[in-house]
Amino acid sequence: MRPPPATPASRHRTASEQVGAALLDAAQAVLDREGLAAVSVRAVAIEAGVAPMGVYNRFQNKDGLLVALAVRAFDALHAAVDVEHSGEAPGDPLQRLRQSCRAYRTFALRHPEQYHLMFSGVSSLASPSPAAKHGTAVLQVLVDTIDSATRQGILHAAEPVEAAQMVWNAIHGAVTLELASLNVTLKRHGFEPADTYDKMLDVLIDGLRRP
Amino acid sequence: MRPPPATPASRHRTASEQVGAALLDAAQAVLDREGLAAVSVRAVAIEAGVAPMGVYNRFQNKDGLLVALAVRAFDALHAAVDVEHSGEAPGDPLQRLRQSCRAYRTFALRHPEQYHLMFSGVSSLASPSPAAKHGTAVLQVLVDTIDSATRQGILHAAEPVEAAQMVWNAIHGAVTLELASLNVTLKRHGFEPADTYDKMLDVLIDGLRRP
Repeated sequence: MRPPPATPASRHRTASEQVGAALLDAAQAVLDREGLAAVSVRAVAIEAGVAPMGVYNRFQNKDGLLVALAVRAFDALHAAVDVEHSGEAPGDPLQRLRQSCRAYRTFALRHPEQYHLMFSGVSSLASPSPAAKHGTAVLQVLVDTIDSATRQGILHAAEPVEAAQMVWNAIHGAVTLELASLNVTLKRHGFEPADTYDKMLDVLIDGLRRP
Repeated sequence: MRPPPATPASRHRTASEQVGAALLDAAQAVLDREGLAAVSVRAVAIEAGVAPMGVYNRFQNKDGLLVALAVRAFDALHAAVDVEHSGEAPGDPLQRLRQSCRAYRTFALRHPEQYHLMFSGVSSLASPSPAAKHGTAVLQVLVDTIDSATRQGILHAAEPVEAAQMVWNAIHGAVTLELASLNVTLKRHGFEPADTYDKMLDVLIDGLRRP
C-alpha cells in the first residue's frame, strides 16, 4: 500500500487506523463492484494487496468485515439524510423532512450494494450488533424532524417514533421496489419514480397533518 | 410418489400435471424450510424422491424452478389480498383496502421465504418473466380498490395506479423491515408492529382523502 498523502486529517491518524481504513476501502470497492455475495476475507485481501492474515487480524472474519462495512454505510446514509446539520437546511421542518427523504432515495440508488448490505437482514448485523446503533441513528433524524414539526403545530404526530417508522416503511419500500425493478406497472403507465416518490411524501405529510 | 387421492379436482388433472404439482410441492417445502439459497434441482429431486433428470425435464433448470415457485407464491398472495372476491368483503372500499393490506402483511409474516423469493430481486423473475405478470395482478387489487373509492368520492386519487404504488411501497417496506427485525426502535418504544401498521394505513388513507 502507498503511504497516504499528508493531509491534516491523515497526520492525526495512527498507522493502525490507516491500515484499517485502507482495508475497509478495499472491502467497499469489492462490495460496490461485485455485490454482497462477493465480499470475503480472500477477495478483500486481494483487492488491498495484502495477505489474508492481514484482514483476519483486523476484522476477525467475514462477519466482522460486514459489520464494519455496514457501520460505514449507515454513517454515510446518516450524513446524507441529516440535512439539518448540512448547513443549507431550510427552517421549515416539513421541507427538511422532504429533503431528508429525497436524500435517502438518492443514496440508495447511488449505492445499491451498500443499501442491500444494510437492509437485507444479514444476521450478523441484527441488533444488538455495533451496526444496529448506527442504523438507529438514521431513523432518529426522521424522528427529530417530525417531532420538531409537531412542536411547531405543523404536524399532529402524537408519537413521532411511530410516525417516523411509517415514513421509513414507505421510503424503504419505495427504494427497494425501485432497486429490484419491481415498479414496472408504475413505469408502464408513464410515471417517473422520482415524481411518485415526492407525491408519496406529500400524501404521508398530509396524512400526518390530521389531529 | 404416491398417487394422489381421487378428489374431483385431481380426477381432471392429467398425470403430467400431477407430476408437476408434486415437484412444485417439494420445491416449496425446501424453500419454506431452508430458504431461497437452498432451492436447487438436486435438493428438490431429493425432497420429491425422484432423479434430478425428472426435475430438469419439468423445469429446465434452477431458474425455471424459481419462476414456477414465484408464480405460485404470487397467486397465493393475490388470493389473500383479493378480499373483494373472498365472499366476505365489506362494501366500503376503504375497509376493503385495509383488509387487503392486513392480509398482505399476514401472508408475508406466515411465508417469509416465499415473500423473499417474490421481492428480493431474483433476476430470473424480473419483467418480462412469466412471474412478473402474476406479481402485477397483486398490485392491481390495490389499484381497483383505490379506483373504486375514488369513484365513490371517498378518496381523491387522481391516479389510482400511482396511489396504489404508494400504498404498496409502504406495506412492502413495513413487512420487509419487520421480517428483517429492523423495526427495533419501534419495538423498544413499546409499539406493536400490527398496531403501527394499521395506523400507517390510516395515515395513507387520510393523505389520499385530500383533493
